Formats: sequence, structure tokens, C-alpha cells
Amino acid sequence: MTGWLAIAGLGPGDAGMVTPEVTEALALATDVVGYIPYVARIAPRPGLTLHATDNRVELDRAAHALAMAADAKRVVIVSSGDPGVFAMAAAVFEALEAGPADWRALDIRVLPGITAMLAASARAGAPLGHDFCAINLSDNLKPWSLIERRIRFAVEADFAIAFYNPRSVARPEGFAHVLAILRETCGAHRPILFARAVSTAEETLRIVPLGEASPDMADMRTMVIVGSSRTRTIERPGGSWLYTPRSAA
Amino acid sequence: MTGWLAIAGLGPGDAGMVTPEVTEALALATDVVGYIPYVARIAPRPGLTLHATDNRVELDRAAHALAMAADAKRVVIVSSGDPGVFAMAAAVFEALEAGPADWRALDIRVLPGITAMLAASARAGAPLGHDFCAINLSDNLKPWSLIERRIRFAVEADFAIAFYNPRSVARPEGFAHVLAILRETCGAHRPILFARAVSTAEETLRIVPLGEASPDMADMRTMVIVGSSRTRTIERPGGSWLYTPRSAA
Repeated sequence: MTGWLAIAGLGPGDAGMVTPEVTEALALATDVVGYIPYVARIAPRPGLTLHATDNRVELDRAAHALAMAADAKRVVIVSSGDPGVFAMAAAVFEALEAGPADWRALDIRVLPGITAMLAASARAGAPLGHDFCAINLSDNLKPWSLIERRIRFAVEADFAIAFYNPRSVARPEGFAHVLAILRETCGAHRPILFARAVSTAEETLRIVPLGEASPDMADMRTMVIVGSSRTRTIERPGGSWLYTPRSAA
Repeated sequence: MTGWLAIAGLGPGDAGMVTPEVTEALALATDVVGYIPYVARIAPRPGLTLHATDNRVELDRAAHALAMAADAKRVVIVSSGDPGVFAMAAAVFEALEAGPADWRALDIRVLPGITAMLAASARAGAPLGHDFCAINLSDNLKPWSLIERRIRFAVEADFAIAFYNPRSVARPEGFAHVLAILRETCGAHRPILFARAVSTAEETLRIVPLGEASPDMADMRTMVIVGSSRTRTIERPGGSWLYTPRSAA
């Protein structure tokens, strides 16, 4: 039996957003590897070994998965959302580049998933309907000066901006700085979306003007999207839709 | 029977990337609305009316779908990829805002899908593994000056950049300008990915340095991703992987 490695996205949480190709890879796997809460989403079965590890050991986890695939295992690394967006795929290629040369001949596939910003955008309307960018506020791999610089250019470019990991454990005060920069550059009326635990039982959505946004509106499970200068709200019974028109003018 | 409208993403082409919630909405629909090639992906069945229209009538199509939902139909608007990314969701909310007030009480859901940049990124490795942006080069709704300005800020921010619709019919020469700006600002060695018709029988992938990129490498079915300053290639048998490390330094 030839081994392989699939790096698969489980989407934001609901089983209705897991693609059939990911489900099929999981059905064929001998080993599933990932961060504890993502592995907890996989049903145990005979012949399948579950390897749940802590979130801070991505490179070790990736090397372990590659070594198992080289040892003829059929391995799935699970990420939430899409594995290519602030998740395990980049870590696997880092480990691949640093690892033994024969790993480069392995059968490796990345299986995309519904990433958090698209799930959040869908629930709120269409805030990413025009040009946009995605910025990871997790700080352990990126200096704050670069984050600030990137946000300022993103606002100059008039992108809608999706923020992943707004309140990381290592630097909880960072998000207050982000909100201050956004208020300074976008003004108090620009709408901002806080979408928490989308597609799960704990889902909450909140759309406020930047002037009313506060850091405590986001936690580790919140996706934050700030609109471009064109982003609009539409009032509806019980709430509002948030969307960015297709036209720039 | 109460009507509803679902705006659903069919993913890049392969049935293995259509989410179960989209499949379920299609199974319940009385009417499917969309651009001709997307509606062609839906199997006819008794009780289902297919409404295939030209690509240039998004607002009319959206208003038609909303009117049918208000008339107690169960309507699915189909987009390729994700409906919220340069697709039909924004057009629906534009039509909703301009339409009769009672449309705002309609049951409207956006069902996310695997958007083209994430499918292309997965096939190539993980070029969007760090901060990135998405820019639509389709010109009919956006002046060229804004596109150029946005690209220059995106390069300053050091985003990887995903370009949708690189060669639109209305302005085929625009993509040559884009490549010239990228060569000027990113240099000749920065890698660029041309991913055509990902997940279909016509799929092709090509990764070249910017200095070797030419406009004819992209057509209407091509997703183009240019790396950030950190994006790297890994040689492997028969090709290479393209990825952006998680670390910025």
C-alpha cells in the first residue's frame, strides 16, 4: 500500500460545510493528525488512529504526518476552515522543505475548505463582494510593526479587511490598537462585523459602526471584517445585511 | 409553502467540492437561476425550473430571483466558487436595497463555496498561507486607475495577491499592464502562479518567475496568484510546490 498525505479543511464547524472530497479522504485514512478540537470532530473507527496535539507544535505535527506518509500510512491533517489560510498547509511545506529529500516524492494533496472569513461573510450578507484582504493578527510569528504597516496600506487600497485571530492569547491588547488605527483611518461610521463561532450552536453576529466597536466584542472564536469605503448596511426585520457593492464608483 | 432564496456556491467545478448544504438546497429548490455554464451543472428533475441567463444581467437575475422567492418559490441562485467573492451575492443585495420594502423580510441565505483562489492555492501548495488580498481585474465596474493604485498598495503591504478575471473580454490588454506593474514593484524573480480550470479535466498549473510571465498565460478560466516577498518554491519530481511560510521574518 502506498502512503499519502492529505491536508484537509473541515470548514467552520457545521457538517453541511465539509466537502465530499474531505469526507472521502477521512474515510480512507489510517491516521488523522491535528489540533485537539479539530481532531475531536472526527468519529473514531477501527483501523483509524487519531493523533491530537497542542496548537503550538505545528511544525512537529507536520513532520510527524510526513514521516507517517513516507511509512506507507494514509494520513489526513485536519484544519478548521481552509488548510491554506492561516492553517496547517504552510507548516507542512515548511517541514517538507527542511526534511529529507525523499519526502518531496510523496503524494501530498491540499483539500480546500470553507475558510472562516467566507462563512462569516455569507452569514452577514456579502461584505467581501468587492476587493478585499485577509490579515492574521496572531502575533507569535509576525512583529506588530508589520501588522500596523499592512493595515494602513490595506486601508489606503480601500480593501474590505478580514481579520483572523483578533485576540490571541499572547497579545490580547493588539486588537485595541487595530481598532484605534481603523477608527483613525476609516472614521467612526465605517461598519465592522464581529462573527463568532459561525455555523455552530454558539453563533452570534454583530454589526456596529467603528465608533461603537470595542475589543471585548472579539474573542478567539471571532472573525472580524471591516468594510471598505463602499460597504453598506441594509436594515431588515431583526437585524441588518452587510454588503459591498460590485461597483467601485 | 413559504418561499426562500439561497445564493449558493458550486465551487470550482468538481462535484467533490460542492458542500452538502448546497446539494441539499438544490434538492429542495423549485427554481434555479444563474449564468448559463453554472446552471448547466444542475441536473434537471421534475418540479425544478432552470433559468439560465447571460453573464451581463446580474441585477436583473437577482431581482427575478427575489421576486420568485416573494412569490413563495424556493429559489437557488448558483455561482461558481463562492457566491460572496466577485459573484452573485453582492448583486442580490444591490437588488434587495433597490427593490420593494417587503423583500427585506424574505428568507435569504448565502451558502459559501470553495472560491477559485483557494482551489488554485491548494493545488499549487500554500501560496496564500500568510496575509493576502484578492483583486478582481474585471473592468466593467471599476476604473483602471483604481486597479493600479490598489495593486501598488497591495505590493507595499507585501500581500500575496490573487487576481480574479485576469483577462476579461472588455479589456484584454489590462493584464499586460498588471504584469508590468508587478515586475516593476516586485522584481523579476517573484513567483507567479497561473492555475487554469482547477479541478476540471482541463486543469493546468504553471509557476514561473515574473520575468518569464506573459499575458497569454492567462485566459478567462485562469486564476493568477503572485507571491509575497516571502513566497518560496520547493522542487519536486515533475514540478514544484509554491508556498508562503507562516512567519514574516
